[in-house]
Amino acid sequence: MNLYPTICVALLLSSCASAPPAATQTKSLTPSSVIEQSTTADWRQPDQQLLLHVKTTEGEVIFELAPQFAPEHVANVKTLVAERYFDGLAVIRSHDNYVAQWGDPDANTGKARSLGNARPKLEGEFVLSRDAIDFHPIDSRDAYADVVGFAAGFAAGADKDRIWLTHCYGALGAGRGMEPDSGNGAELYVVTGHSPRHLDRNVTLLGRAISGVEHLSSLRRGTGTLGFYETPEETMPIQSIRLGSELPPEQRSNLEIMRTDTETFARYVRSRTYRQHPWFIDQSGKISVCNVGVPVRPAR
Amino acid sequence: MNLYPTICVALLLSSCASAPPAATQTKSLTPSSVIEQSTTADWRQPDQQLLLHVKTTEGEVIFELAPQFAPEHVANVKTLVAERYFDGLAVIRSHDNYVAQWGDPDANTGKARSLGNARPKLEGEFVLSRDAIDFHPIDSRDAYADVVGFAAGFAAGADKDRIWLTHCYGALGAGRGMEPDSGNGAELYVVTGHSPRHLDRNVTLLGRAISGVEHLSSLRRGTGTLGFYETPEETMPIQSIRLGSELPPEQRSNLEIMRTDTETFARYVRSRTYRQHPWFIDQSGKISVCNVGVPVRPAR
Repeated sequence: MNLYPTICVALLLSSCASAPPAATQTKSLTPSSVIEQSTTADWRQPDQQLLLHVKTTEGEVIFELAPQFAPEHVANVKTLVAERYFDGLAVIRSHDNYVAQWGDPDANTGKARSLGNARPKLEGEFVLSRDAIDFHPIDSRDAYADVVGFAAGFAAGADKDRIWLTHCYGALGAGRGMEPDSGNGAELYVVTGHSPRHLDRNVTLLGRAISGVEHLSSLRRGTGTLGFYETPEETMPIQSIRLGSELPPEQRSNLEIMRTDTETFARYVRSRTYRQHPWFIDQSGKISVCNVGVPVRPAR
Repeated sequence: MNLYPTICVALLLSSCASAPPAATQTKSLTPSSVIEQSTTADWRQPDQQLLLHVKTTEGEVIFELAPQFAPEHVANVKTLVAERYFDGLAVIRSHDNYVAQWGDPDANTGKARSLGNARPKLEGEFVLSRDAIDFHPIDSRDAYADVVGFAAGFAAGADKDRIWLTHCYGALGAGRGMEPDSGNGAELYVVTGHSPRHLDRNVTLLGRAISGVEHLSSLRRGTGTLGFYETPEETMPIQSIRLGSELPPEQRSNLEIMRTDTETFARYVRSRTYRQHPWFIDQSGKISVCNVGVPVRPAR
């Protein structure tokens, strides 16, 4: 808790008190008004080389990768994509209130697809040194981390020494077995329910969905152990995975993402903390990091 | 924060320290071992008059109602069920990472179905007096409530004076309009994503799913504003809603629910806080109330 006074000073636009800020400060401070009042400088266009387009029979899901947190996993996934490893594989698991997972249905058999030039094992990229990245805390009392906020545009938790990505809805992770270095990015999962934050710092997160995650979260749940599908017919084909930069221009996304290192974003967080909409009778004046939601919109 | 010392004393089996408890205390303290070692007295069989069987074309969802928190809404829903108000209505909204909602597609038209003997408006049952119900706090630092825990078997938040049900995954709520008394239980929703806890104390929660919620959380998302379906063809029919007590014995559920006022449940919460499974490399030693999950199983 001793970190909070620091946070309050750091976030000049955020209120640290429990009471709503004065009306003059919060007039029209709704999420949509903050977005309306934002300027071009408040948004960034993601690097097309860091957008993972997952094409399924239900629709396309786009993830933004986080090489700042998981450089080796991102590089390995890029190798797998370049060599078309994923094309024709499948979503093999849909675990209610937890994750959807895709990869090679034959991974544990003699018919496993070759990983090609990708590395079969990677050291877990579970945490960074706290001073390795610019971190913007928010005013939130978190169940799992000393402090939470945003770094490089991603929701993150931190303690005095370390910082890590958080398992919020839409977070993209690299499945692993019992050994910390048994993940490689060939088996990926996305969080589809309440945030399983106990997984934080135990498995590599390497990005988060910015579009279309509903195609994975609305899949019929698997009836096997841990939500795995029990027959090949139940799985959903992964038609292809491509980086944005590999796609012809007309197939690329044209999305922009609100920057998380600005005064505007601090105001956005505050607008989600103090809900000004008249529907709210009892404003909590509180927020959890997984309920912030970084705005994404078609680029202007 | 000043409530925590009290909680630590109250929960004799829970650890208040950040460090994992001594090995002798936690040997085999996994969620499944706690369940295995439980006794008959650790479980309760829900009252069939408080089980809401929602039958859809995708499968059956069963909710346990919470008259302890929302007596008027539960009574009104029972009236609606008794008069078969819900039969033939539909799930009209599936909002990604938020809620699925069902009710009368014609509610806002001249063709709205009659509410019969049910009351059209009910005062919001948003909070109870803290001393009105037996509350078992857990050791969790919560973003939204001073203290969290369980009351009458349901996840709850509390402050010094008040206690309320929390919007965790599977929570059942009564939709309302702008006025606090505009809900009546004819339009119900269930939480299907990360817990939208900012809704706590702003809308009446009256139960939670104990079986089959995946039939509602895996619905295709609506493409209209707020996830509403845009055409009648997209909605999913509600074939019927019945109380367990109305069903012939062979159609009733035979589930038992772990009691939340026992030493066994405190051990269960601790097993979810300190994950003993060897897969975990960096135990958080933390828990959020929506990640506890009260065990439900076929009755022995």
